[in-house]
Amino acid sequence: MDYLVMLPGPTNVPNRVMNAMLTHIINHRSDDFRDLYKAIVEKTQRVFQTHNDIVLLTTSGTGAVEASVINIIRKDDKVIIPVNGEFGTRLADLIDSWGGHAIRVKAPFGQNPPYSEIEEAFDQNKDIKAIYAVYNETSTGTTLRYLDKLSQLCSESGAFFIVDAVSILGGDELPVDKWNVDICVTASQKALAAPPGVSPISISPRAKKHMQANPPPTQYLNLKRYFKYYEENFETPFTPALPLFHAFSEALDLVLEEGLNKRILRHKACADAFYEGLNAMGLSPFAKQDARSNVVIAVNYMPGMDDKRFRGLLSQQFRVLVAGGFGELKGKVFRIGSMGEVNKYHVMRTLSSVAYSMNILGLNVSPDAASIALKRMENVM
Amino acid sequence: MDYLVMLPGPTNVPNRVMNAMLTHIINHRSDDFRDLYKAIVEKTQRVFQTHNDIVLLTTSGTGAVEASVINIIRKDDKVIIPVNGEFGTRLADLIDSWGGHAIRVKAPFGQNPPYSEIEEAFDQNKDIKAIYAVYNETSTGTTLRYLDKLSQLCSESGAFFIVDAVSILGGDELPVDKWNVDICVTASQKALAAPPGVSPISISPRAKKHMQANPPPTQYLNLKRYFKYYEENFETPFTPALPLFHAFSEALDLVLEEGLNKRILRHKACADAFYEGLNAMGLSPFAKQDARSNVVIAVNYMPGMDDKRFRGLLSQQFRVLVAGGFGELKGKVFRIGSMGEVNKYHVMRTLSSVAYSMNILGLNVSPDAASIALKRMENVM
Repeated sequence: MDYLVMLPGPTNVPNRVMNAMLTHIINHRSDDFRDLYKAIVEKTQRVFQTHNDIVLLTTSGTGAVEASVINIIRKDDKVIIPVNGEFGTRLADLIDSWGGHAIRVKAPFGQNPPYSEIEEAFDQNKDIKAIYAVYNETSTGTTLRYLDKLSQLCSESGAFFIVDAVSILGGDELPVDKWNVDICVTASQKALAAPPGVSPISISPRAKKHMQANPPPTQYLNLKRYFKYYEENFETPFTPALPLFHAFSEALDLVLEEGLNKRILRHKACADAFYEGLNAMGLSPFAKQDARSNVVIAVNYMPGMDDKRFRGLLSQQFRVLVAGGFGELKGKVFRIGSMGEVNKYHVMRTLSSVAYSMNILGLNVSPDAASIALKRMENVM
Repeated sequence: MDYLVMLPGPTNVPNRVMNAMLTHIINHRSDDFRDLYKAIVEKTQRVFQTHNDIVLLTTSGTGAVEASVINIIRKDDKVIIPVNGEFGTRLADLIDSWGGHAIRVKAPFGQNPPYSEIEEAFDQNKDIKAIYAVYNETSTGTTLRYLDKLSQLCSESGAFFIVDAVSILGGDELPVDKWNVDICVTASQKALAAPPGVSPISISPRAKKHMQANPPPTQYLNLKRYFKYYEENFETPFTPALPLFHAFSEALDLVLEEGLNKRILRHKACADAFYEGLNAMGLSPFAKQDARSNVVIAVNYMPGMDDKRFRGLLSQQFRVLVAGGFGELKGKVFRIGSMGEVNKYHVMRTLSSVAYSMNILGLNVSPDAASIALKRMENVM
């Protein structure tokens, strides 16, 4: 039996999307490719809710996040960044190692720093070049719920607003133009439910202008080259991962056929079902209530649940994949990716498998979870 | 009818390799992935003829070439590099923009700089950090035929020997250990006949040691991270392009099933058939005889052959894809990728389509090409 992939990326990929990879090889310097790439750009704009330029990189999400740093940040540039998990830490470290100065507004993992602390950091530092925000912190299952306010702070000051939306775009609200996001980064294998290996990025006109005037000393993630090749020929500067481009195009079709709003409601309903169902089973989420993600559910282990044993049971006896903890949360939590194609069958199979695995570990689990979870999803599925 | 993809990458991908992409999504932090990645590493070592470390990057070849620069070159490092085409130029420019100092030993496009000029440059410059060589210059159809001598120069002086073998590895001789290649880079979609999007790179122990002591200020192409993740867990630091990893693994199986020597002989025979067949049709290769590539055949247009019209006929009337010229050769040559799965049917279909397209353009073509080409391939296919 195939795995049910409840990871926070890669996630389950629909057959239609997988099969698109079998499209025969084409010339990436031909109209065949130009038509494909133009269509991807236009569909990505609709999913990002933006008119900004779109680039599709042949990299994982990390590559695209790195592009958002090396194309904008120069020596001693000051950047404010909320940090409350592994991916925020990693991004802040990259900004520093690249020569920038990351001002970290920290919160304990599982919580968001209060918005007032960001404002404070902003007031205390002059010449802030950009605010970077990891919208969904995949390592802890938290979502930053004040992007609109960060947007306003940037608009007022002229700072660039840069959003790492790798694990969330397509699964929660992110109107790029409305929130004036200068650079928005996501990846194919998360809430957009395509295979991993390509990562789209949107760039506002003012960010683009800045990048064109200050290109980085490298080639592969140098966005100026991507703009040039697209404007001149609707091509990428370097050979694109063709099968993944076809698959991503198909995945975007699925998003647009469902409709973004409906998709976001579905994610919300599945997340609610997970949180309440797990709660009924005696399991608590790692994230504080007001920070909880609708796409990554991080769950505290209770005594008697050994990470390796529990996830081994889930994988080997039920063919359900969930992730372990990351960094300092290793062994302390498990994480469910509730994203992409997630629907009530996924939720119910995951919850029942979690319950049965707990039973095998000798833990008693209340039977209420089943109907509680179902109820949460009845209106949207 | 599907295209016959005679491009210098991407090239025709066998069905077995395409279908491997449909393997169900797995957890890239699990034994499922570790087993896959270990197998890829071991098979890549055999194809590279090396015991060196192997990293498989989720990038095009350019990304892997960039990794060979940013992980080795530091400010003011002197590098010698033969330059006789677009890709050599691009690599030398990257070395300079990254802060190094590229000493270009130039030759007219279509020729290799004499080895004596490289030796001279070496003698005239102290403290050469590395010699970079683009083994096969895809833009002009030339192959550098003295890698063994460059290797010796490096061994004697202690300089790193770095080979961009993107468009050739698997299609011509390249014994990495025998030639003491410190960093060898290739890409999936060329002579290894996998889909584009992943690029393997081999790193010698001394190059690895140097990289671990001097990591670059970035993350995505920082090889120190890849070594760490592989040594600790047989994983990649960032989400790998899983379907392309499966496909690449299958492509390596095909290479090893055929046998490297047999594969190289097949490439040589097909190249000979192309050169002699095209010659019989009145078409001359762009490259000088002693520099001619066995994997990329660059052909001068004769009067009456307009690039757009000719390649349009080939593509639209015969479903055969060949590439145009690159940079300053645009409109002056067309380029045939004779690599990967190339066999006598590919060669004969390509040659007959070229001849018919020339006929449509009003050019008379000698009928001798057909039997001349066939004869060249009779012993190996």
